[in-house]
Amino acid sequence: MTAFASDNYAGALPEVLAAVAQADALGHVPAYGADPVTQDAVALVREHLGEEAQVFFVWGGTAANVLCLESLAPAHHQAIVCAESAHIYVDEGGAPERLLARKLLPVATPDGKLTPELVAPRLVRFGDEHAVQPKVLSITQSTELGTRYARAEIRALADLAHEHGMLLHLDGARIMNAAAADGCSLREATRDLGVDALALGITKNGGLGAEAVVLFDEAHADGIAWRRKAAMQLASKQRYLSAQVHALLTDDRWRLHAAHANAMAARLAAGVTGLPGVRVTQEVQANAVFAIVPERVREALWADGFLFYVWDELTGEVRWMCSWDTTADDVDGFVAAIARHAAG
Amino acid sequence: MTAFASDNYAGALPEVLAAVAQADALGHVPAYGADPVTQDAVALVREHLGEEAQVFFVWGGTAANVLCLESLAPAHHQAIVCAESAHIYVDEGGAPERLLARKLLPVATPDGKLTPELVAPRLVRFGDEHAVQPKVLSITQSTELGTRYARAEIRALADLAHEHGMLLHLDGARIMNAAAADGCSLREATRDLGVDALALGITKNGGLGAEAVVLFDEAHADGIAWRRKAAMQLASKQRYLSAQVHALLTDDRWRLHAAHANAMAARLAAGVTGLPGVRVTQEVQANAVFAIVPERVREALWADGFLFYVWDELTGEVRWMCSWDTTADDVDGFVAAIARHAAG
Amino acid sequence: MTAFASDNYAGALPEVLAAVAQADALGHVPAYGADPVTQDAVALVREHLGEEAQVFFVWGGTAANVLCLESLAPAHHQAIVCAESAHIYVDEGGAPERLLARKLLPVATPDGKLTPELVAPRLVRFGDEHAVQPKVLSITQSTELGTRYARAEIRALADLAHEHGMLLHLDGARIMNAAAADGCSLREATRDLGVDALALGITKNGGLGAEAVVLFDEAHADGIAWRRKAAMQLASKQRYLSAQVHALLTDDRWRLHAAHANAMAARLAAGVTGLPGVRVTQEVQANAVFAIVPERVREALWADGFLFYVWDELTGEVRWMCSWDTTADDVDGFVAAIARHAAG
Amino acid sequence: MTAFASDNYAGALPEVLAAVAQADALGHVPAYGADPVTQDAVALVREHLGEEAQVFFVWGGTAANVLCLESLAPAHHQAIVCAESAHIYVDEGGAPERLLARKLLPVATPDGKLTPELVAPRLVRFGDEHAVQPKVLSITQSTELGTRYARAEIRALADLAHEHGMLLHLDGARIMNAAAADGCSLREATRDLGVDALALGITKNGGLGAEAVVLFDEAHADGIAWRRKAAMQLASKQRYLSAQVHALLTDDRWRLHAAHANAMAARLAAGVTGLPGVRVTQEVQANAVFAIVPERVREALWADGFLFYVWDELTGEVRWMCSWDTTADDVDGFVAAIARHAAG
Repeated sequence: MTAFASDNYAGALPEVLAAVAQADALGHVPAYGADPVTQDAVALVREHLGEEAQVFFVWGGTAANVLCLESLAPAHHQAIVCAESAHIYVDEGGAPERLLARKLLPVATPDGKLTPELVAPRLVRFGDEHAVQPKVLSITQSTELGTRYARAEIRALADLAHEHGMLLHLDGARIMNAAAADGCSLREATRDLGVDALALGITKNGGLGAEAVVLFDEAHADGIAWRRKAAMQLASKQRYLSAQVHALLTDDRWRLHAAHANAMAARLAAGVTGLPGVRVTQEVQANAVFAIVPERVREALWADGFLFYVWDELTGEVRWMCSWDTTADDVDGFVAAIARHAAG
Repeated sequence: MTAFASDNYAGALPEVLAAVAQADALGHVPAYGADPVTQDAVALVREHLGEEAQVFFVWGGTAANVLCLESLAPAHHQAIVCAESAHIYVDEGGAPERLLARKLLPVATPDGKLTPELVAPRLVRFGDEHAVQPKVLSITQSTELGTRYARAEIRALADLAHEHGMLLHLDGARIMNAAAADGCSLREATRDLGVDALALGITKNGGLGAEAVVLFDEAHADGIAWRRKAAMQLASKQRYLSAQVHALLTDDRWRLHAAHANAMAARLAAGVTGLPGVRVTQEVQANAVFAIVPERVREALWADGFLFYVWDELTGEVRWMCSWDTTADDVDGFVAAIARHAAG
Repeated sequence: MTAFASDNYAGALPEVLAAVAQADALGHVPAYGADPVTQDAVALVREHLGEEAQVFFVWGGTAANVLCLESLAPAHHQAIVCAESAHIYVDEGGAPERLLARKLLPVATPDGKLTPELVAPRLVRFGDEHAVQPKVLSITQSTELGTRYARAEIRALADLAHEHGMLLHLDGARIMNAAAADGCSLREATRDLGVDALALGITKNGGLGAEAVVLFDEAHADGIAWRRKAAMQLASKQRYLSAQVHALLTDDRWRLHAAHANAMAARLAAGVTGLPGVRVTQEVQANAVFAIVPERVREALWADGFLFYVWDELTGEVRWMCSWDTTADDVDGFVAAIARHAAG
Repeated sequence: MTAFASDNYAGALPEVLAAVAQADALGHVPAYGADPVTQDAVALVREHLGEEAQVFFVWGGTAANVLCLESLAPAHHQAIVCAESAHIYVDEGGAPERLLARKLLPVATPDGKLTPELVAPRLVRFGDEHAVQPKVLSITQSTELGTRYARAEIRALADLAHEHGMLLHLDGARIMNAAAADGCSLREATRDLGVDALALGITKNGGLGAEAVVLFDEAHADGIAWRRKAAMQLASKQRYLSAQVHALLTDDRWRLHAAHANAMAARLAAGVTGLPGVRVTQEVQANAVFAIVPERVREALWADGFLFYVWDELTGEVRWMCSWDTTADDVDGFVAAIARHAAG
């Protein structure tokens, strides 16, 4: 099966599995993160993101984001402004509202990216006890629509947030794809732009299941040990999470694999551009391709065994994700099939 | 380092690591549990626990318990009666209260075990809108104090619960140790006794990090897909959790390793019994030994590099845990050290 | 001071104060609603809304709505679809999200009214564990924008909801204004149209502070005694709430006062229509007038001592509310002042 | 009917009703507390409790307590230590756990009063992420068992709390009874003893339904406007709450009525002391009498039409409450009936 359904369909990097085995070989070690593997992994994250970074490993991305948000907006009346297409808004089954018991304020966007202009109408009624108080801007990089913020765009949002006494959260489930595409370091892609809290994605780019909450201001980390515990994300055998993070950040492996996934998406987009009835709908700036294809073609591709999701039932727009393990042959075979059906 | 601090200090079984690698070797597979590894693991859990068991894998034990409790007591005014020493009451950092926003009613016990007599004073004020309504009895097997319910004792609690329109939850972080000690199947240790919901522990007995929520009545599973998602415990690459469960339940490996841990605890208890100043404080019926030792001896053992926790600061009671990887030599060396210091 | 700021600026009806005094004159009576005044008031609500109505008095409108919503959507993953201008969405300081810990899905509308067409895009992803599940349509009658649903429009929304296994909630903070304008009974304005839960507003139409939760299906009332208690809305001296409800529903007093407020709004709208620079922006179908007036005029009116709120900072739109105690002289004086400044 | 069931069975003071009518006579005034009645009432509370007191009116006592607790313990992992008999622990239907989603740690007491010795075992595991962190001591004055803390006892608890970085909350549903019994001012009974947050009860001592949250440190009030709104306790026509508070605090009326209720309890206790089979079980130090009476006597009294509650089903202990409207004749008639049945 060749799947373009999700980067979560991919397995783990061999180096990740090896690191897990190596962590296991230590035998008995303290639980709950008091182990040497965790110590090393935290140190390595700090090498990448700054010595003052506060780093907490968790299992899943939902939790990484929710813990970032709670750290930045500790009171229930503090609201989070995000794109209407943000994963935290539409794809967490309501987990943020459940856990945080506070409001997310959605902003419609054409491409998944907030801008100061789009955000402005949400930044109102400060001080009014009848209204929730915007406290966090939340962005996703690269976005859920496969687009990418320019670094100056993130800086502008950080400035906007800070001018209003607000903070900037970055859902970095695919920050590695963005930084690889930008040719910058993870720090240049986040902290140096004014990001206050980062959910650092590991799983999609070759992990088994591990993410990191990274807070750039120590003050926001106050109490996070308990927040993580109450979010049910304190792993007893934490070394196995830490090992994954360590493996991906060692020797900048993250960049190699993310760049590859990006390249596969570019190859796919190039391959389908100009095919009859096929229209790429978003700039391809990371590892996703969004396109409108005739329903007939979609059905034929599914019949062939290709896996991918319809993104928008109304328009028939589909999403094709590339991952670290997508091969050029996978892409070429997929393109050939699309071309064949589109021509038919 | 020889640690008797926690069964969470142990690594993973070789078979577990192998199963994870094997799941990885499948390459691309659907995410979020729609993969063949998960399918097989669910089927295997059902072989052990009954075909009608509803099975949901999660990362952590806190979540497994909280999801069981929420499934059995869906309304906020429904309270959970548990031992004052229950892990869910004292060692989750308040996660149950945070997530469930409902009340846990603690019951003092001499040995970590609820009894109908001890529970009775909590089963009052039914129908009174000023009082929370007891809805779940929650027990831990084996208990946090290393003791074990006899099967008839669990049956009696199940009957008591059901007579009051209540349900029985079993925190099975160490149910494998209990079933191994009892020489019964997992089903005989739970479902057949009237247990309604089981948090099936995998991690402590040789997993990397995986637990299962098992609901014995399909009606209680209504909506659990969203509850798991909102509890931030829906793993995207779920196959790696499922592989662990599968590995441990295959060929009754769970019994072998749990029985071993139990045997090591028995060996340890036997070894220290009668030593001057040392008193084993609880029946050793699973893989834990609770004992009071002179402060001088504790300090000397720590100075030797042995790791273990003080359970009760007031009495000086300590907890020594054995795990699947504890060796007879580990135990004998520890006993010798205790004996030496106790004699000193 | 003559205020057109809010119907909450009005005091209480003399009959309401008299009823409170009469309830007080009973001396000692049972607390928490087990008193004869409450019994009579519940019976009277049932006369108006149907014998099967489940009726629960609370202090405030926020709570009345939240309790309705929780009764209809008891699980956290169940979402509430409402107009973007709904009071529950923008003016409760996030109380619904805080209390319910679930998601409200806003729908943009031109006039504060949901329609099947506007709602349709929200009724998607049923069964998808990654998405919240729409369970309630919530409408406000009369709306926050002073408009009014035709009864057939409510019926159509009820049908739409029920076809999708959903339920219909009506925020009736001003249902009396709507029913008075429609010339129908409260029951014809709600239950008979398919409404499942009604927050029956008392305070704005001449109460001191009392509202009623009315559930039309007994099944939805299961557990509401505890939900009210946990919402901190079980009044110990409940008779004083009940007395207010009783006074307003006796002899259809509610209709007299609501119709008067409506008439004052109509008089005001008629008075300002055609004034230079003044544009009434919404149909005046209840007791509110929305209008755009020149900033200069607004400022001059405030300088005169008239009180009212700007509804939309961007457009300068203002809201003028009439209440049961607004007099024709109040309106005429206000119109004269607007005319004078507008002409200036 | 003569009731000794609850001080909530009493009606309102004539002065309270008069104040409400007077507030009403103001006609149109701003809503949500921006009215002159509220301004005056806040000023009067400050005269009684100190100029720096932050004062917020709410409808109910549950809410007053919960808002105090949330203000003092803003994070979910912060726990509240209280007596096992505390109203917040046993009689709020789980509202504190529902709203606060945090843990209350109960302490068994013989008389409803915490002491440093009783509290000490709860003040453990500071800094341990697996355990909730004690942040607030919560006491009730006068207690739910009719006893009263000596002022030095409260001071000792305040010191204990503050030494541990904790804070002291006082549930003052009956603080007026305590202060009247002590012959001290409300300030001497609370703030001057180190109390950090006070739920000032108005309703039981002659109000219709109004309480005040009083925070003695401005820092704890940060965000409380939204907390009150989200707790659904921001009254739109707040003047009617404020009027009640004002009426009760004017000319120290509170003391007159509370002292009267206390005197009636003392008269009752004196009257039944020595009767055959009757034993007063708690010191009578406020307006409640707890006693054990033969079941036969209880039944006979109920048959006579006297109302009161059994406090403890196991022991048959009953609670007799006196209120501001209890007369000496009420008491004497009740005593005579008890004596008659007890002799029988």
